[in-house]
Amino acid sequence: MRRYTYPAAMRRLINELSKLPSIGEKSASRLAYHLLISENNQAQQLAQTLIEAKQTIRFCERCFSLSETELCEVCTDPERDSSLICVVEKPVDVVVIERSGGYRGLYHVIHGLWSPLKGIGPEKTKIPQLMSRVRATRADGASVIEEIVLATGTTVEGDATALYIADAVGRLGVKVSRIAQGLPKGGELEYADEITLSHALLGRSKME
Amino acid sequence: MRRYTYPAAMRRLINELSKLPSIGEKSASRLAYHLLISENNQAQQLAQTLIEAKQTIRFCERCFSLSETELCEVCTDPERDSSLICVVEKPVDVVVIERSGGYRGLYHVIHGLWSPLKGIGPEKTKIPQLMSRVRATRADGASVIEEIVLATGTTVEGDATALYIADAVGRLGVKVSRIAQGLPKGGELEYADEITLSHALLGRSKME
Repeated sequence: MRRYTYPAAMRRLINELSKLPSIGEKSASRLAYHLLISENNQAQQLAQTLIEAKQTIRFCERCFSLSETELCEVCTDPERDSSLICVVEKPVDVVVIERSGGYRGLYHVIHGLWSPLKGIGPEKTKIPQLMSRVRATRADGASVIEEIVLATGTTVEGDATALYIADAVGRLGVKVSRIAQGLPKGGELEYADEITLSHALLGRSKME
Repeated sequence: MRRYTYPAAMRRLINELSKLPSIGEKSASRLAYHLLISENNQAQQLAQTLIEAKQTIRFCERCFSLSETELCEVCTDPERDSSLICVVEKPVDVVVIERSGGYRGLYHVIHGLWSPLKGIGPEKTKIPQLMSRVRATRADGASVIEEIVLATGTTVEGDATALYIADAVGRLGVKVSRIAQGLPKGGELEYADEITLSHALLGRSKME
């Protein structure tokens, strides 16, 4: 006797949904069912928004964060300090730093980290484009960029990429800094791992 | 200074995705970003599949499970025992029971449970349509349906709904049964709750 399963169109939808990151087959079935029985055109609206976003959104041609225009809102904002570039891995990192409210310069999204083990060299990221920005000079010959803030993650690959960029940028005589590593806000020493703690000690600052 | 966030089209997509069950704002951002940078038309394909599924899929007019045709594949399968109806809450329950391979009759999806607290009476579910099916008689006057298997969940509402249907169907002289409650396969007594254990004892069967 044939065992019944979902209709073909539903199976195709479940299959597409389960291609998304961290969505397994069970979650995909639940989402598909929810979308199918939803009212108020929820499914059509999601499909429409998805197509629109895909058509509208591209990468900023200067900093490679997400944008709807050739240059993004940060790159075209005259109030930003254009002598500072913060280097991050992914577009989401820009949003996270903006939310913190602690930065007023420009960005550069490198879209990947230097990872010899995965066969990803610097040329597969947007690091070459970063170097072009750093090399840009004013009419008087001085560098436009005064400081590069390296805000890649504090993983092995994030650290290696930061070291690589620091070396390349340092040769051009431009100041390079790395975001601080230490205890997270609200963190207790008792639960901190040894590497975090040693970084927190090394990076100590004078209290005024 | 203006703080930058995602472009408007991306924010709309995040907003639509976060309307899905168990998808919070962070997951929605991650999914949206994944879809935007995906290659091989993944985003367009998802949108297309969603629209197609929404247009194609409806409820079977007899049993109310998901179908692409007026009557579903189970209802039209001549090898099925049409004297048996298994009553479940949701379309997914049909798929789960089919997967178990332990059932060869028809289904009836009631789309909801009797819940006085939530103001859901039997008339808001597909229980009236179930009663019509049970009342159907053959040319010789005997009932077409010989047994109703109640397979709603073993929650308070699932049990109450099962009791309600058992009462209504019983009055028509049709046999009613309820799926067994007991220890799950691989379950240890030590970790079973008292109610499950008492049901498992009450429902004991003779070993041959």
